[in-house]
Parts: sequence; C-alpha cells; structure tokens
Amino acid sequence: MTPILLVTGFEAYGDHDANPSMEVAKALDGRPIGPATVRSAVLPVHHAEASRRVAALLDEHDPAAVLHLGLAPGRARIALERVALNVMDYEIPDAAGHLARGEACVPGGPAAYFSTVPVARILAALLAESIPACVSNTAGTYLCNQTLYTTLHRLATTGRAAAAGFVHLPLSPAMVAARGQELPSLDPSLATRAVEIALAVVAGAAPLSERSR
Amino acid sequence: MTPILLVTGFEAYGDHDANPSMEVAKALDGRPIGPATVRSAVLPVHHAEASRRVAALLDEHDPAAVLHLGLAPGRARIALERVALNVMDYEIPDAAGHLARGEACVPGGPAAYFSTVPVARILAALLAESIPACVSNTAGTYLCNQTLYTTLHRLATTGRAAAAGFVHLPLSPAMVAARGQELPSLDPSLATRAVEIALAVVAGAAPLSERSR
Amino acid sequence: MTPILLVTGFEAYGDHDANPSMEVAKALDGRPIGPATVRSAVLPVHHAEASRRVAALLDEHDPAAVLHLGLAPGRARIALERVALNVMDYEIPDAAGHLARGEACVPGGPAAYFSTVPVARILAALLAESIPACVSNTAGTYLCNQTLYTTLHRLATTGRAAAAGFVHLPLSPAMVAARGQELPSLDPSLATRAVEIALAVVAGAAPLSERSR
Amino acid sequence: MTPILLVTGFEAYGDHDANPSMEVAKALDGRPIGPATVRSAVLPVHHAEASRRVAALLDEHDPAAVLHLGLAPGRARIALERVALNVMDYEIPDAAGHLARGEACVPGGPAAYFSTVPVARILAALLAESIPACVSNTAGTYLCNQTLYTTLHRLATTGRAAAAGFVHLPLSPAMVAARGQELPSLDPSLATRAVEIALAVVAGAAPLSERSR
Repeated sequence: MTPILLVTGFEAYGDHDANPSMEVAKALDGRPIGPATVRSAVLPVHHAEASRRVAALLDEHDPAAVLHLGLAPGRARIALERVALNVMDYEIPDAAGHLARGEACVPGGPAAYFSTVPVARILAALLAESIPACVSNTAGTYLCNQTLYTTLHRLATTGRAAAAGFVHLPLSPAMVAARGQELPSLDPSLATRAVEIALAVVAGAAPLSERSR
Repeated sequence: MTPILLVTGFEAYGDHDANPSMEVAKALDGRPIGPATVRSAVLPVHHAEASRRVAALLDEHDPAAVLHLGLAPGRARIALERVALNVMDYEIPDAAGHLARGEACVPGGPAAYFSTVPVARILAALLAESIPACVSNTAGTYLCNQTLYTTLHRLATTGRAAAAGFVHLPLSPAMVAARGQELPSLDPSLATRAVEIALAVVAGAAPLSERSR
Repeated sequence: MTPILLVTGFEAYGDHDANPSMEVAKALDGRPIGPATVRSAVLPVHHAEASRRVAALLDEHDPAAVLHLGLAPGRARIALERVALNVMDYEIPDAAGHLARGEACVPGGPAAYFSTVPVARILAALLAESIPACVSNTAGTYLCNQTLYTTLHRLATTGRAAAAGFVHLPLSPAMVAARGQELPSLDPSLATRAVEIALAVVAGAAPLSERSR
Repeated sequence: MTPILLVTGFEAYGDHDANPSMEVAKALDGRPIGPATVRSAVLPVHHAEASRRVAALLDEHDPAAVLHLGLAPGRARIALERVALNVMDYEIPDAAGHLARGEACVPGGPAAYFSTVPVARILAALLAESIPACVSNTAGTYLCNQTLYTTLHRLATTGRAAAAGFVHLPLSPAMVAARGQELPSLDPSLATRAVEIALAVVAGAAPLSERSR
C-alpha cells in the first residue's frame, strides 16, 4: 500500500483574505513523493475543530508523516518549526471568536514536543536548492503551534509511528501588494516547491523507508 | 523609427555574487513594449565609468525613456525612486576601490532632480497586478542614486526629451538562501514582470506617445 | 546681543498621544549653548500653519540657527536629516484633515534643499558621546520634511544667514509600552542631550561664531 | 532569615564589548526587594561553566527565586521568556570556542520547561510603569536558553522550591552607537528599573511570601 504523506494548510483568518498554506496544500494533493503520495486537507482556524479534523485525518489516512503548513506574516523565509509548546495565547480571536489566554493546548500534557521531522536535513536540502529557509524556535502561540502540539501529542499517546512537523510560509507577494506595507513575501510556487522538497526528505528518512517496506 | 526604452542593470558588487538588476535588464533586452523596444545594458559599479557608459548609451540609442535598475538589499518591495540627490556618500567602496564621502555627483548641480517617469501611475499599475511595490523617497547615496542623478542632469542640460527613472529591486530568493539571513526577497521573474509593467506605463505616457508620432 | 538658537517640536498627531519632539523642545527652552541661548516653540501638525508659525518665529527671534525636531516612529537612532524635498505626500491627514498627495511644498521651488547644519560633524559629536545616531537621506513627505523645506526656502529667499536643520527622534519607551508593538525607542532625556550636543556643534560652527562676534 | 533573590548577568561575548545584563545584575546586588535581598553574579558565556556556576550559587544562597538576565541584540523591548528548550544550537562559539549543534542541554531531559516566574503579571507590572516589555516564546538556542533550562531542570530534580525565570535585555544605546547599525536599544538604567519591578512581582508572589514566613 502506498504510504500517505498528510499535508494540511489553514483557511484565511484575521484580516487576511487568503492563506498561502491553503494554496500550497491544495497544489500538492495527489502529488507522488518517492514511494509515497500526498493527501492534503485544509483546517479551520478554530481552537477545537482544527485538532478534531487532524484526528479524523490520521484515522482516515494512517499517514507515514504529517506536515502542517501555516502562514507567518512578517517572516521572510520558509521556517521549519523545531518545537511545539503546550500553550495557547492568542493575539486575535480564532474563527469561533475564541481568544485563548495562557491556556494549555492539552491540560496535563508535557511543556513541549520537538517536531519529529528532520528539520536540519530539510533545511540543508532547501538551501541546496537556493530556497531561503531557516529553522525556527517558536511556532507562536496561536493555531499553528497548537496544531503541531496536538498532533504530536496524539501521535505520542496513540503509538502511531508517523513523523510530524510544521512549516511556516511568508505572505504571498499579492497579499503584500494588497496590504501596502513593507513586509516580506515569497512566491507560493516557490513555497510549494519548498514543501515538496521537505516532503521528499521526510519520505526518504529512515522511519518512512522502513515503514514503506 | 521604433522608439527605444533604455534599461540598465548593475554588475554584482560588494559581497553579493549576483545582481537581479542585471538579470532583469538582460531578460528584457529586445522586448517590445507597445510601440517601443527595450535596449538593455549592464553598468559597472564604478563612480566614474557608470555615468560615462550611460552618456554613451544615450548618444547611441537616443532613447524615449531610460529606466535604471538597481539592487536594494533589505527592501521587500519594488521601489520606485522619486528623486536623486546631488550627493555621494558610499558605505562600501565601488569597483575601483573609491569610497566617496559627502561629495557632489555633479559639483555645482542642483540639490536634487525628481524622477521624470510617472511614479504614482507606475505604482498603481503594479498594485493592480498584485505586485508589491512602493514609492521610495531615497535611492541612497551610492551608485544607484548617482546614476539617476547624472542621467537626469545630462538629460536636463543637453535638452533631450527622454524621461528617466530608477527602480530598486529586492534581493533574489537565491541570494537570501546563500546569505543565511532573515532578509526579504522577490523572485527575479516577478521583478522582470514589474519592470515590464513600469515600461508600459512609461511608453504609454504622453511624452513618449507624442515623440513616437 | 545673545544669538538665538531656535528649536521647534511638533504637537502630538495621528494616533500618538505624545510627541517627544515637543518634550525635548520644551526642555531646552532658555538653555545656554556656548554664547547662544535656546528659544523653543511647538508647531501644529498643519499643512499651512506650521510654516506660518516658523516664519513668525524667524521674524521675532532672528535666530542664528534653526533646529526643527520631529518624531519618526520605527527609527532606532537620532536621525540627522540631510535634505528636504519639495513634495508633500501625506500617509495620514494633518490636524486640519488635509491629505496632501504629490503636491509641492512651494510650487516652483527647487526640487530640494540640503540642510545647512553640519550633519557629518554633528553625527561625529553624537557618536563620540555614545549616542546612537545616523545621517538620514529622507525626512519623509509629511510635515517634518515640509517644515524643513519651507524654512530652508524662506531663509534662502529672504537672505537670512541662519543655518537650518532637522533632527528626527525615535518613539519614547512609554509610547512603545502603550502601543504594545515591537518598535525601537529612545529615552527623551537622551534625545534632549543629543539635541543639546547638536546645537553646540551648530553654535560652534564658523558662521555662528562669526555672526556672534 | 532574609530570602535571597538570585540575579545573574552574563559577561560580554562574541563581538560585543559590553553586556547590559552584567551591568544590571551588578547594579542590583544587595538591593532590598520587599522582604528579600538581591544577590547577583556574573556568568561566563561557557557551555559547561555557566550551569556549574549557577549550581554553586543555588547551594550557596538557597534563593527564593532566580532571575537570569541576558542580552538579546535586535530586540526592542524587555523580553520575559516563557520557556526553555532542551536544545543547544549555537550560531557563534562560546567563550571556550565550543559550537554546539543540535545537542541537548540535558540528555534525556524533557523537551522544555516553562519559566516558573509569573510572566503575565510581570508584563502587566512593567507596562503599568510605561516600560516597553513583552512575553517572548523563544530564548534562542545559545547560553541564555541553556542557562534557564539547566536551572529549571536542577530545581525540578533537586526539589528546591525556588521560582526561576529569564529576562532578555536590548542592546544599550552606547553599544548601538559603537556598532553604527540601525538597531533598537534600551537604557541600562531603565532595564535595571524593569528588573527591579520584575523582582518585586516575584517577591510578592504567593510561593515566596509563604516561604519567607
């Protein structure tokens, strides 16, 4: 059976009328990556629904790896998140109007989980292709961090072997043009290429190779 | 006779091993823009040779308009320069090792010249195409500003009717990847499209239309 | 007769509830600087009234030098403006609700005037006192630039010998605390010290020395 | 017996010739804070010695709370660190020339520890005093993060009741003046006041009050 690489993006949120993470996720749906195939989904920016949706996707696809994508306005490079913290501290309300303040993602859960995709190797692969990228030490305290945390927690507590990680994408040039502010951007087509490269590293990593045997 | 739109880029300089302004200029050479045709050239980052080269190009092509392109590391958007100042205050030496400090571009020349391309209309055209752009009020005090100043001064003092302007381009994604710093970038293909749009506005502006009759 | 150094600040404007340029100007009123004395005034952020007020102050005090102060949100250092452009291109309305768009400060005036205070020497004096400072090549296109332009134009066209310049100040720490944004600040007491040093350089400069003989 | 508040700063490191965290720590040594007294120390920027020194200080003083201070070049506000990660990923070598790359601070330790000082209440107290401050979600991956991690780990594994936290300070104005770069700064005297306020919040928090009975 073909291993599945689950890729998620988020819906538009806040004062943004688009979300490149959604575009990139959709663009990759069905794409073959080595021995694996991408299945993508779009998550709501919702404190409770996002993780429920991921839980259902894990059950449905039993993926070999999960790569969540999100938007990081103000960032100039593809950011590979190293860690997820057990905290929700929203600066703006989510799609349900919920404004979490200093709450735990999972009460009683550990302070943090490290991403289980090989961020240093993904970084090297991206830079080798001349794509601006970095390892990030904070995924924030909004839905992006929360989604990575809850996914890693679910994988850890349900004994699934899937690797999981998070990639933050800069604004698109069109979004910066519409905002009229001096903010960095990255072309969604380059972001798509970056995520494809990241997935190839993940798919070629030992755990997946063994799994796919 | 077909009107000529002269486009110039610069060679790589300082610690940069590339210069998107050169790539964009080369990519546009020969391109038809409305009734006009682009002729492009690459200028040395040299306090004396750059303006000499432009003077020769003006004599050779008698262009309807001149658009100089340059690199602005750290900028996130296409920057349409509004003005050139009569000052050279280099932060790094030029290709000849010259480090100008508080000198005039043209001793006795006016303090500044405004660009004579319609920057507000070019900005509107770029934003309408969802390309991140802005009007900039300073082209710096290095070769970019100097080249715009000396071109505008030459045009003003020789009575040529050509419009002249300057467009600053962000770093390319590949340059940011190589530098390993959190700096904004813009894809050279999008920058090329931006300059093409700017040229179309310039070519459609009244002075050129009249001239091309 | 004691030479007068005229220092101006601006009132609060836009969404700011304070303006360090006003505080600094007031703090310096009456201060002796070498052989000279400071007289300070606060200008309205008004497209027409600001320059009228300066004209009246020039008539009243016949100052040896004029140093305008203004706020530059986002700047991290004391910024010594090199030049004023003949353009008003407001991003926010002034106190009268006027939103100038691409107008001249003085129709028919030159494109720009260079500041006539010795910015390089002031910079050196500030850095020697370990105060973060820089020379800036754009004073923007709002009231700050306009005030420097109209003052320099008035001095040039009325034959007064006074030197004139502009110093931009960062936000105060209290303003950044109130805004809750990651923006640089500088303590108003350090800004006051910086302006005092700048005035001492201006007062010690040859034109003033000669004048004060 | 008077409860002790242990405050540490760091020595100068990298290309910095000063470190405001050291100045602030020294300035606070012996200062009474409510019922408690500050004892301060300066730590070497050394991957092994810094935590050994802290361990000795904990044994010597048995402090009610520990507040580590460090320098965060580029930050504009007092940053209250929320969390320490179990990772060392140095961008520059430490004082011993060691360049840790993706190593654990404590092999086998948890992924992260949350700071045990009340960062939200400290933030509120600082903003109430008009001091620019924020909660930060990453203390980096250098000595600052490592020191907070190893201190929290030691406290957790040795059963000491002391609270522990980390405060990052911006560059000083003098350091920015010397660097000649557009970087934010904060006056060390304001930073000292900020740390004093933070210590007062910590000293007034329930665990310390109970402890000091």
